Amino acid sequence: MSRLVMKFGGTSVADIDRIKNVARHVKREVDHGHQVAVVVSAMSGATNQLVAWTRAAAPLHDAREYDTVVASGEQVTSGLLAIALQEIGVNARSWQGWQIPIRTDASHGAARIADIDGARLVERLAQGQVAVIAGFQGIGPDNRIATLGRGGSDTSAVAIAAAIGADRCDIYTDVDGVYTTDPRIVPKARRLDKVSFEEMLEMASLGAKVLQVRSVELAMVRNVRTFVRSSFEPVDGPGMADENPPGTLICDEDEIVEKQVVTGIAYSKDEAQISLRRVPDKPGVAAHVFGPLAEANINVDMIVQNISEDGSLTDLTFTVPNADYERARKVLEKAQAEVGYQAIQGSSDVAKVSVIGIGMRSHAGVAADAFKALASKGINIRAITTSEIKISVLIDAPYTELAVRTLHSLYGLDGK
Amino acid sequence: MSRLVMKFGGTSVADIDRIKNVARHVKREVDHGHQVAVVVSAMSGATNQLVAWTRAAAPLHDAREYDTVVASGEQVTSGLLAIALQEIGVNARSWQGWQIPIRTDASHGAARIADIDGARLVERLAQGQVAVIAGFQGIGPDNRIATLGRGGSDTSAVAIAAAIGADRCDIYTDVDGVYTTDPRIVPKARRLDKVSFEEMLEMASLGAKVLQVRSVELAMVRNVRTFVRSSFEPVDGPGMADENPPGTLICDEDEIVEKQVVTGIAYSKDEAQISLRRVPDKPGVAAHVFGPLAEANINVDMIVQNISEDGSLTDLTFTVPNADYERARKVLEKAQAEVGYQAIQGSSDVAKVSVIGIGMRSHAGVAADAFKALASKGINIRAITTSEIKISVLIDAPYTELAVRTLHSLYGLDGK
Repeated sequence: MSRLVMKFGGTSVADIDRIKNVARHVKREVDHGHQVAVVVSAMSGATNQLVAWTRAAAPLHDAREYDTVVASGEQVTSGLLAIALQEIGVNARSWQGWQIPIRTDASHGAARIADIDGARLVERLAQGQVAVIAGFQGIGPDNRIATLGRGGSDTSAVAIAAAIGADRCDIYTDVDGVYTTDPRIVPKARRLDKVSFEEMLEMASLGAKVLQVRSVELAMVRNVRTFVRSSFEPVDGPGMADENPPGTLICDEDEIVEKQVVTGIAYSKDEAQISLRRVPDKPGVAAHVFGPLAEANINVDMIVQNISEDGSLTDLTFTVPNADYERARKVLEKAQAEVGYQAIQGSSDVAKVSVIGIGMRSHAGVAADAFKALASKGINIRAITTSEIKISVLIDAPYTELAVRTLHSLYGLDGK
Repeated sequence: MSRLVMKFGGTSVADIDRIKNVARHVKREVDHGHQVAVVVSAMSGATNQLVAWTRAAAPLHDAREYDTVVASGEQVTSGLLAIALQEIGVNARSWQGWQIPIRTDASHGAARIADIDGARLVERLAQGQVAVIAGFQGIGPDNRIATLGRGGSDTSAVAIAAAIGADRCDIYTDVDGVYTTDPRIVPKARRLDKVSFEEMLEMASLGAKVLQVRSVELAMVRNVRTFVRSSFEPVDGPGMADENPPGTLICDEDEIVEKQVVTGIAYSKDEAQISLRRVPDKPGVAAHVFGPLAEANINVDMIVQNISEDGSLTDLTFTVPNADYERARKVLEKAQAEVGYQAIQGSSDVAKVSVIGIGMRSHAGVAADAFKALASKGINIRAITTSEIKISVLIDAPYTELAVRTLHSLYGLDGK
């Protein structure tokens, strides 16, 4: 017998028929003798409607009231799923964040979970009752509903799994796992059986939108084995009730016996490049450039500074989110006198392609292979950054698909 | 300065524009120096959708889960109105039943309010903050959301008014007050300025659907001056911010200086008549007839027993709700041997017309006038019941409008 958390996203509970299907997934696990806590999102579309209403009521609005309005979506799903479970003979009850309680910090609208009291849940699970928990929400220090920000239900699920000491946190979603890369670009992309927390973190933050970054961080910190699987597979399909059902397990790297050098290729087109030409190469210049950007709440990602030709002037290149591109340029144009650069150049038509793998730590030459392969296809590299388990290159956006396919083949990730 | 409760029903908060209009009504009272608590229903249609979902999930479902799902409608409105109020510069926050708390009994789906802790609300009101309270809901002894049953927001408003010692509870609705009778039948019907709790109770339970019966009962018991007014009047229309705005005040009869003999004419077409012919006129027969009906959960209203011709057999006539007519006949047919009646007759095509007025207590001849007037129009009276402040007659349904108009004129209720 195991203790499981099962999390279902908005598309998995989009209407009553799908909620009934979710109930059958839950029943399957209960029938196999597991203790089950279910975490649900709002019905697909519900959150958008609620958010639209708060905006229509006032463009700028009290985050506490926003939370009150928007959290109702998950409340509805939790009650409906409890009803659907009871209807097929499964003992179940719904739990709202304030009932458990799931305590959060005071950051309404984007709260972080501070503490979950798992005692009563564990007690009910031991009595054979399924807990159906409204995701995305908790209760703040002000005794008011606080939401965790978009995608927060993944985080709820992982946090609850940690609080009740679950053996596994199953994230049911509209894909059947994490792939070596985006299958829409590379049809030969393979589903990974296992991926380490660190790798998944890089994948998630680089645009593989299977799991929220925060939930992966939390899973890593609390060592919650998190399993991504499809809610649209037949409930009694092959292997669905096995120890190793189809899907991708995100786990500690110690649990991954055969470590791959490269696990996946991620990409992001949400990038813009800015280059400052002929910047004085002296201490304090970086602060003059990045200080105003930070104040404007613009995230800077890849930063590359060339060695200056004559020891006095250099070029500075970095990336910002595409949506902030124009704003970033304006901020820098204002700061031209202070920074002392000669010209500003940039492009919002760039993409970041990343090679990820914990095996890189012990393998040299991974980066060199990548650069060589890209060069052989005539793909110009605008900037490079590397970490222990990742190499990222900035390229012209039209080459994204070609670069991803080239690297996917290069590292032997193509399936049959 | 007064302390006010303002209650807005589903049609008054049906969309964001109407919610903004409600905010302006609230601001008007705040600007006049009043302390204001607002009670809101779900947006029109929201509750129906939520109820439909619970039914689709399972025809018979856990009332606790039903409450969790359905109470979300009021939660949404409370947050949206708080936002709309803040947007126009009014300090406001939303309150859910569990936050105040509004404690109820354990009857999920049709809970009764047990206790409201008004202390924190009073404190915030004194600080100049408007309390926007989700109606229709509280928290049960099991620490779960409990709803008060359909129309429960009126009851919430009155109970909150009592708990915070409000000077008046304003019920904003889609009509501008309580009328002497249904204006759709009698265009000359007049709006009443004042009506006593007792009279309103008779009006409400007889089908004048302005206020829920339970809320009027509660207003009477707790002596809450309840004012019915229109939310569709212009916010700054004539008299809207006066001591005596347009509408109907439901209050203790001591506050009504000029007592009318007759205040209003109510009617109900939701009636069916059953007559048992030639019933043995002996003790215990009534129990044999009404016991099985009570067991079948069928409410019996008007009961008339004729004096038996020969001292041994009598006729027994009574009414039941139209929807229970067929079921009631079946129950009685089963009990024929026990009761010993000879024949059962009945009609679902009947209506009850009632004359209501606290002045009747001190005036004789009111009933006689009514019977005479109805007879003069050729309207046959099938049964009569009277109370201290009410005379009801059962007539053939097609004569309802004629009877109502005749009585309305008879007692001088017609306006100009």
